[in-house]
Amino acid sequence: MGIVLGANRYGKAEVRVVRVDRDTPRHEVYDLCVSTALRGDFAAAHVAGDQANVLPTDTQKNTVFAYAKEKGVGEIEDFALGLARHFVADIPAVTGVRVHIDSYAWDRIEVGGKPHDHAFVRRGQDVRTTVVTVEGTGTWVVSGAKDLVVLKSTGSEFRGFFTDPYTTLTETTDRILATRLDTEWRYGTVGVDWGGSYAGVRAVLLETFAATHSLALQQTLYAMGEAVLRAHPAVAEIRFSASNKHHFAVDLTPFGLDNQGEVFYAADRPYGLIEVSVRRDDAPEAGPAWHVGAGFTLG
Amino acid sequence: MGIVLGANRYGKAEVRVVRVDRDTPRHEVYDLCVSTALRGDFAAAHVAGDQANVLPTDTQKNTVFAYAKEKGVGEIEDFALGLARHFVADIPAVTGVRVHIDSYAWDRIEVGGKPHDHAFVRRGQDVRTTVVTVEGTGTWVVSGAKDLVVLKSTGSEFRGFFTDPYTTLTETTDRILATRLDTEWRYGTVGVDWGGSYAGVRAVLLETFAATHSLALQQTLYAMGEAVLRAHPAVAEIRFSASNKHHFAVDLTPFGLDNQGEVFYAADRPYGLIEVSVRRDDAPEAGPAWHVGAGFTLG
Amino acid sequence: MGIVLGANRYGKAEVRVVRVDRDTPRHEVYDLCVSTALRGDFAAAHVAGDQANVLPTDTQKNTVFAYAKEKGVGEIEDFALGLARHFVADIPAVTGVRVHIDSYAWDRIEVGGKPHDHAFVRRGQDVRTTVVTVEGTGTWVVSGAKDLVVLKSTGSEFRGFFTDPYTTLTETTDRILATRLDTEWRYGTVGVDWGGSYAGVRAVLLETFAATHSLALQQTLYAMGEAVLRAHPAVAEIRFSASNKHHFAVDLTPFGLDNQGEVFYAADRPYGLIEVSVRRDDAPEAGPAWHVGAGFTLG
Amino acid sequence: MGIVLGANRYGKAEVRVVRVDRDTPRHEVYDLCVSTALRGDFAAAHVAGDQANVLPTDTQKNTVFAYAKEKGVGEIEDFALGLARHFVADIPAVTGVRVHIDSYAWDRIEVGGKPHDHAFVRRGQDVRTTVVTVEGTGTWVVSGAKDLVVLKSTGSEFRGFFTDPYTTLTETTDRILATRLDTEWRYGTVGVDWGGSYAGVRAVLLETFAATHSLALQQTLYAMGEAVLRAHPAVAEIRFSASNKHHFAVDLTPFGLDNQGEVFYAADRPYGLIEVSVRRDDAPEAGPAWHVGAGFTLG
Repeated sequence: MGIVLGANRYGKAEVRVVRVDRDTPRHEVYDLCVSTALRGDFAAAHVAGDQANVLPTDTQKNTVFAYAKEKGVGEIEDFALGLARHFVADIPAVTGVRVHIDSYAWDRIEVGGKPHDHAFVRRGQDVRTTVVTVEGTGTWVVSGAKDLVVLKSTGSEFRGFFTDPYTTLTETTDRILATRLDTEWRYGTVGVDWGGSYAGVRAVLLETFAATHSLALQQTLYAMGEAVLRAHPAVAEIRFSASNKHHFAVDLTPFGLDNQGEVFYAADRPYGLIEVSVRRDDAPEAGPAWHVGAGFTLG
Repeated sequence: MGIVLGANRYGKAEVRVVRVDRDTPRHEVYDLCVSTALRGDFAAAHVAGDQANVLPTDTQKNTVFAYAKEKGVGEIEDFALGLARHFVADIPAVTGVRVHIDSYAWDRIEVGGKPHDHAFVRRGQDVRTTVVTVEGTGTWVVSGAKDLVVLKSTGSEFRGFFTDPYTTLTETTDRILATRLDTEWRYGTVGVDWGGSYAGVRAVLLETFAATHSLALQQTLYAMGEAVLRAHPAVAEIRFSASNKHHFAVDLTPFGLDNQGEVFYAADRPYGLIEVSVRRDDAPEAGPAWHVGAGFTLG
Repeated sequence: MGIVLGANRYGKAEVRVVRVDRDTPRHEVYDLCVSTALRGDFAAAHVAGDQANVLPTDTQKNTVFAYAKEKGVGEIEDFALGLARHFVADIPAVTGVRVHIDSYAWDRIEVGGKPHDHAFVRRGQDVRTTVVTVEGTGTWVVSGAKDLVVLKSTGSEFRGFFTDPYTTLTETTDRILATRLDTEWRYGTVGVDWGGSYAGVRAVLLETFAATHSLALQQTLYAMGEAVLRAHPAVAEIRFSASNKHHFAVDLTPFGLDNQGEVFYAADRPYGLIEVSVRRDDAPEAGPAWHVGAGFTLG
Repeated sequence: MGIVLGANRYGKAEVRVVRVDRDTPRHEVYDLCVSTALRGDFAAAHVAGDQANVLPTDTQKNTVFAYAKEKGVGEIEDFALGLARHFVADIPAVTGVRVHIDSYAWDRIEVGGKPHDHAFVRRGQDVRTTVVTVEGTGTWVVSGAKDLVVLKSTGSEFRGFFTDPYTTLTETTDRILATRLDTEWRYGTVGVDWGGSYAGVRAVLLETFAATHSLALQQTLYAMGEAVLRAHPAVAEIRFSASNKHHFAVDLTPFGLDNQGEVFYAADRPYGLIEVSVRRDDAPEAGPAWHVGAGFTLG
């Protein structure tokens, strides 16, 4: 029996870079949180403490800042692709790179009815994300929206479910359906109008959520995924992690009141967690899984 | 020397109540976090463990839910006033009540270009707040906005400051100014169009932030406060707690790059914290301070 | 009617300084989060944007680091006193200073049964705090413990309380009592063995919580405060902010099970919030309230 | 081209159950956060909204509570195994189950030098975790420690690393090494003294961290993993996700002070993130990856 090094990667997490485009009086602001992770020939660093192959995480951070100046940010997918390709191409020991970016949106403040040139208020809704992986000859782009919170005050049922001796839930034909969505969609190509695609996918997700009469969160998510795939040929697969935010109708009968779906207690925990993938049956393969670290439980 | 009971209060914190108005197909959603605190004759509960005067916090919670059904929510200031007045009027031992409400905004999802009747997406920007105090014959309403995050990418200086042997900061005539604002304004009356006033104050705050050439955060805040008081006669005083979100220009000279205010590192901590009140010189008195609990350090 | 500047203060919040004493092979680690706030003649900064009197918050941060080197840390109360006195004495415009310190404890890792000289594991329990105020000729020291979470699995009742039409809670003679305590005690003097006092007060709090048969959280807190005041003559007053962490016995009767206080659901929100002060009747006055910023609702 | 359902699972997340063993006056408290996830024949729920196969997450929650009463908790691994086996065995549509448990430790409060029978203070250090997977004929147990924060004030170097045009970091032979560790170890069997193993692994981790002269975090982690595998034959593999908490020596030369590794700024972000697996070369296979939901980026 021997003890061996398994999967490994390392990088700089959560580099908070803000890039201002100021070539004209009308500034643009890019507010990013960038994480880089490298894979490659790092066995000596682990087994012998030999850093000769190791590009410090501090240098990775510097590179993010320098690229923000040199290349600008533009679409986060392009910025991530540039960074990932650089590390693979220019650092000898590196065979694979993953770049993860969260992007926070700012709206222009209106002054006298007109959007201001250089004053902004944080939008605060969902976060636009991308994860770009470059490994060998492969490149994968997975973009997404994080913390998109949606609610329907009616048009949601839950009934006909399996029952066992531990069941106490009653069926309902009218409940609040609310969920916090983290969603990611994998592109089958890298030749995409990233910003237009993000806006389009997000709009389809919201519209389909609103327009679908819900029989359960699973069915709603599947419908949302299907609608995205139909409308966006560049998307090969879409995945959801949906935290079901339970709203329990409060029993007001002790106070002589009849609660007809009007007053709810919004619970924090526990919450239903629904995770699902919807994909094309001829979709190209996803990229390498990269499941390392304390990753047993992540999937 | 004797040991005595000092200031005290108690209540139920963070009751998460969602109220749906559904009399018509076009639903309205009120998403609140309500905290109640009672003061009065509760010495026996502390000194002798005698609960005869104590309205349980569980009952306070029930009351919030019941009132949401009976009275509806409407403007959060009115809902808080109703609750506060009830506890003072109807619970014998209670002499004073404070009701604190955070309100989370939801936007209607657009389907086919039209706002949907019962599907919503959480707005996610700043939280609208109110604190209503009723004590003796007095009633005070303090409303606010929490977590309003604003940024100017230029139009902000900081120079001419006091220096001492520990000073290393250099003067600047062009920097990013970004801050997370918690602000509260105290009304001098209770006869107010609460919703209109909230929208108006918020708009004045944003516009003044955008339009003011900043010499320092203090001056910007004062200008914002002054503009609110000029535009809103019902407001007697406004207070700010502004966490200055520092954006440091990254030194890119080691990489042969010239950073002209384009690339910044957004720091988490430490942050400048500026707290200031702007008021009318003939403003009525603020309500009782209610400084109890672990409140030595709050002011 | 005129508009005037009200109360104001400013400073650097959450300076994360770690000080290592390494004069001997057995290192000591001080892990602090330091916030400073200054009051004084800063009207011109607000009204005219004139910074001539303003010591930048960046300089305040530098001072914290420099003092950590020059004076060492030792007891956090002494460190805070040194900083506060410096700002009042050496910065002309400053008339008052408040220094707030959170201190995180580290335990030595045991190797071969012996505490290691320079390897530590974070303790993770409650945070030791102090707030030192210097203003005019006055000095006040308020120390505390934050996030001290305690639980009794029996020995806690709640009955005989006031009932009204909104009451549904039933009386109990045996429940779980659990609370997250933030507590602060004000010293009547500055000549104190700070570290010994902290350990002593904390021990009295825990012992009294354990040994007191609880009729309600109010009575338990009062008993804890009284015990601290009896055992620690240097303490003039103690305040509690206690978040009651509700543990609800789960109804298992639908499954044919009898739950005799064995299985509980630990709720996040809402929670009872009990705030109370216990003091000596001849205690010296507390320091200035310093209630500025968005401080209407803090008390 | 068709659109198909991909991987999916669902369950109840973060059921906060507290179990008190009270058969004797000396109570035991088990404070858990339990999440369940089911896989199986749930296509109809997604595609057609047909719930006939779906065991509601509410029922899963009930089962957790009922099992806490019926079986007791004991070791969290056993509790998780019981739950997982139940769902696979008793719910027809279920083919695989994953149960994740976080366990929060409480220490007995000392009264008069003796541990109290039913009064506790939350320990607050790292969280003990387990993830049990049952699928087909396979059972996998992965236990761990989350949020274990360790620091060495000396005995840590970082030099000899790869440099490129973006490198500014200087080499060091003496720095603070601090990291927040999430670690999980996979057992090769289910016949284990779980509690003893947890305590043993944790002790080896801490001792090895302390005793290893560090050339880099990678080498320290590998040494820690190797030591665990040597000491614990039941462990087949161990994985680390280590967030490197950077402590930067503060430049005090502007103030005429010489900082010899004594004063540090503890940064929040960015942080180095090192992820690594150490395993036996003859270890049995890990369980199914279960990578569904928004899981592209998790690995």
